[in-house]
Amino acid sequence: MGDDTASRRGRTPVWQAIANSLRGEMSEGRYAAGDKLPTEAALAARFGVNRHTVRHALSALVDEGLVRTRRGAGAFVAMAPTDYPIGRRTRFTENLRRAGRFPGRRILSIEPRAATAGEAAALQIPEGAPVVATHSLSLGDGHPLALAESIYPCARLPGIEEALAEGRGVTHALSRAGVADYTRLSTRITAVPADATQALHLQVSEGAPLVRTRSLNADPEGRPVEYGTTWWAGERVTLTLDS
Amino acid sequence: MGDDTASRRGRTPVWQAIANSLRGEMSEGRYAAGDKLPTEAALAARFGVNRHTVRHALSALVDEGLVRTRRGAGAFVAMAPTDYPIGRRTRFTENLRRAGRFPGRRILSIEPRAATAGEAAALQIPEGAPVVATHSLSLGDGHPLALAESIYPCARLPGIEEALAEGRGVTHALSRAGVADYTRLSTRITAVPADATQALHLQVSEGAPLVRTRSLNADPEGRPVEYGTTWWAGERVTLTLDS
Repeated sequence: MGDDTASRRGRTPVWQAIANSLRGEMSEGRYAAGDKLPTEAALAARFGVNRHTVRHALSALVDEGLVRTRRGAGAFVAMAPTDYPIGRRTRFTENLRRAGRFPGRRILSIEPRAATAGEAAALQIPEGAPVVATHSLSLGDGHPLALAESIYPCARLPGIEEALAEGRGVTHALSRAGVADYTRLSTRITAVPADATQALHLQVSEGAPLVRTRSLNADPEGRPVEYGTTWWAGERVTLTLDS
Repeated sequence: MGDDTASRRGRTPVWQAIANSLRGEMSEGRYAAGDKLPTEAALAARFGVNRHTVRHALSALVDEGLVRTRRGAGAFVAMAPTDYPIGRRTRFTENLRRAGRFPGRRILSIEPRAATAGEAAALQIPEGAPVVATHSLSLGDGHPLALAESIYPCARLPGIEEALAEGRGVTHALSRAGVADYTRLSTRITAVPADATQALHLQVSEGAPLVRTRSLNADPEGRPVEYGTTWWAGERVTLTLDS
C-alpha cells in the first residue's frame, strides 16, 4: 500500500529504487552473470530497509529475467547484457557466437500478404505487391533478446516462403532464393515502450524500454531484399558500432 | 455505449468526430508540435460532451502517434522525430541543422574532478587522474532531445575547463584545447527507462524509454579526448546509421 501511495505521488517506491540500484550494478559489471547476490539480510542492512522490501525488489528483478533464485541457495545474476554489433554485415548467429552466447531463433509466423505503403516504399516495390512477412524471437543462451519482423519482396526472391519455412535462418533462406550475399544499407534506431505482447515474448515488464531498429538489407546490386524491424530487450542487449 | 450505438448505425461516433476536429486543427497548425492541448475539462466544455468521451478521442490520437500524454502535465502535440546521424563524424549543430531543426544546447554543469575507474579505462588514463565532467541538455527547435554527460581528460586538453565554460560547443572547446579535429571510435547503444531527474529535464514521463549511447571520441592520433554518455528522448529522436 505504501508503494502504491508513493507511485501515485510520482515518487519511486523504495523497492523499485533498490531494484534500480541492483540493476545498474549488474549492467556495470559489478555483479557478473552467475554471481551470487548478497543475502536478503545483507541487502536489507545495506539499503536500511526490511527483508520484505528487499524481497519485493528481488522479485521484480526475477520477473525481468535478470535474477534467478535457487531454493536454499539464494539469488544469482542471470545474464549480463549481450553485445551485438550492428554494421554493414550483420549476421545474427555469427554475432551471438562472437559474444559467447548460444544463438537461438524461434519463428512465430510466416505469412504471405500484400506490401503496405511503408513497406513498399522501403523495398522499392509497388504498393500491394506480394511480400512474405515473418515474425521471430531471437534468443541468446535461451533468453529472449529480440523480437523481429522481416518483410521479403516475393518477386525478387523466388521460393522465399518455402526457404524461410525450413527454419535455417535468414542468410540460408536468402541464399536459397538466389541472394548469395547481402549487406545493410541503413539502420534507424529509437527507443519504445514494450506493449503487452512484446513484453510477454521478451519476458520483460509491459512498458519496459526496447531499442527498436529498422533496417534495410540489399543484394550486391543494391536491390532491397529484406526490410526488418527489431525490438531489442534494452536490459539484455547493447548494440555496438565501431567506426 | 452511445458511441457504440452510433457506430452500429454507421454514423461517426462522437469521440471520433472530436478526434477528427483535433487532428484537423493540428494539421492546419492551430496547435504546433510540442504545444499543450487544452485540458480535458476545457475540451469537454468546448465540444459539449463528458470527459470520458474527450479521453476516448485523445487516446485515439495517442495511438496514432499524434498526441503524447505526460502524467500530471496533460496532452501535447507530438513532434515528428528528429533524425540524428551517428557515425565517424558526429557534430550536434551540423546534424540538427541538416534535420531542419534549430539547434540549442544548455550547459547544466561543468565540474573538475577525478576520473572513476570506468572513465579512466575508457579514456586510457590513470584512475583518479583529473577530468572535467559536463552535463548538458540538447534542444531541437527549443524542445529537449537529449541529456549528455561528457568526460574530458585534463592532461591531454590544456585549458579545457575554461574553453567549455565559453559555451560555444564541444568542437570549439576541443579546438581551443589544441584538438583541431576528432572522430568517433565506437558507440554502444541500449534502451533505459528515464529516472525522475532525466524525465524532468527531457519533459517525458518517469520510466519513458530513452536510447542511451556511450561513445568515445579521439584526436587524429587516436588518443581519446572525450567519453560521452547521452540519453535521447526516444519519442523525439531517431538515430540513423548509413553503411
